[in-house]
Amino acid sequence: MNTIIETILNHRSIRHYEDRPLSDEQIRLIVESAQAAATSHFVQAYTILGIQDPGRKQKLAELTGNRHVGTCGHLLIFCADLHKHELAAQMEGVEAQDTLETTEKFMVALIDTALAAQNAALAAESMGLGICYVGGLRNRLPEVAELLKIPQYVLPLFAMTIGYPADPSAKKPRMEAEHVYFEDEYPADERLLRDLKEYNETVSQYYTKRTNGKRNDTWTGQMAQFFKEPSRVFMKEFVERQGFDKK
Amino acid sequence: MNTIIETILNHRSIRHYEDRPLSDEQIRLIVESAQAAATSHFVQAYTILGIQDPGRKQKLAELTGNRHVGTCGHLLIFCADLHKHELAAQMEGVEAQDTLETTEKFMVALIDTALAAQNAALAAESMGLGICYVGGLRNRLPEVAELLKIPQYVLPLFAMTIGYPADPSAKKPRMEAEHVYFEDEYPADERLLRDLKEYNETVSQYYTKRTNGKRNDTWTGQMAQFFKEPSRVFMKEFVERQGFDKK
Repeated sequence: MNTIIETILNHRSIRHYEDRPLSDEQIRLIVESAQAAATSHFVQAYTILGIQDPGRKQKLAELTGNRHVGTCGHLLIFCADLHKHELAAQMEGVEAQDTLETTEKFMVALIDTALAAQNAALAAESMGLGICYVGGLRNRLPEVAELLKIPQYVLPLFAMTIGYPADPSAKKPRMEAEHVYFEDEYPADERLLRDLKEYNETVSQYYTKRTNGKRNDTWTGQMAQFFKEPSRVFMKEFVERQGFDKK
Repeated sequence: MNTIIETILNHRSIRHYEDRPLSDEQIRLIVESAQAAATSHFVQAYTILGIQDPGRKQKLAELTGNRHVGTCGHLLIFCADLHKHELAAQMEGVEAQDTLETTEKFMVALIDTALAAQNAALAAESMGLGICYVGGLRNRLPEVAELLKIPQYVLPLFAMTIGYPADPSAKKPRMEAEHVYFEDEYPADERLLRDLKEYNETVSQYYTKRTNGKRNDTWTGQMAQFFKEPSRVFMKEFVERQGFDKK
């Protein structure tokens, strides 16, 4: 196992940071690493906002419901971005709306942005920094979009807090590789159900041990709770309002 | 700059591979690396299919329109997957359909899958292997889904070819970091237009040099062509047919 795979496997979300900003050089390496990710047809369909203004950072901590958004060393907002392509088409006198509004291009922009973000995460971790993805950015997305002056064809997807870890966090046991990797075709439900029961045991043991028996959650139990009620139900409308995923 | 960032920055898509399969150990490390990526609320909303059957691999080369899909050392298909969560909810006697069908959960599954894929890509590259993302997997997605026995709430997003590089490929110049990273808020169009013109120069010089003056494409020119006509227009209907992004 090499140091890169070691770094990858050692990932855990960090939510407590030292009060210590990142250097400009660190930020630049993180951004350039993000950009080095593969991009569909060279579209580079993302924009990264780095939040420096303390007031705005605090406001985002509130809007996302995550304290570490306000206290991290540096805060990045990853946005799916086809606005640059709208401008490119305008510059070239081409009508692009039909394409910009497709579900296909929405998917391209989301995937492009996420690939870039994961490179950013690993670059940060390789420098001894910790990170946490913050999906809570979508809790009050219309307000976030207004705060960050997000135009049409841009969609903030998640934040990433980065900084010097103040305390190590535990790593929850992922599924076994055999539960997510299958040969040649998608497996039958009987197989999956067996896998999930097996995984429930692992998760339950993890919680039992960690809480001295106070909790024994299973994965399917957690997921059932999490999927019981839809969250962020405004999303479809908001995504479409931003111009994405309409046809 | 450390070796991890060097590996990240050195990425290029590889489309010609030696006729040499990956070892089981390499595949396992790639899959475990994928799984170590952050995942929203622990959902782990992806499944990775590794295609071993030569006939199926050849069929996928045809369906994706990419020769290297048939000739790579190992072929991975990354699928957004909420089917496991549907099963989890069933196991727990919970009705999850309303949640499964939201645009929010569609986004979660896409992002989760892409983060995992980028870890897989870097793990492979750290071992001296080359990779290429294949969005062409979506060219004839309904046929791909049938071939791979994809159930409801699963969506194949892209393939990844992996293998020992047979020839090095060039690295196209990405946007400047200043063109994708901005402080505090999304920039005004005047700024972006200036950036894009500057970037056009860079891209044009790259092509002029590489083709001895035969091509001098600009980025906005390429994008305008690419966005002129929508592609994969069946996507919205297919995504909804799979159960995603309906409300």
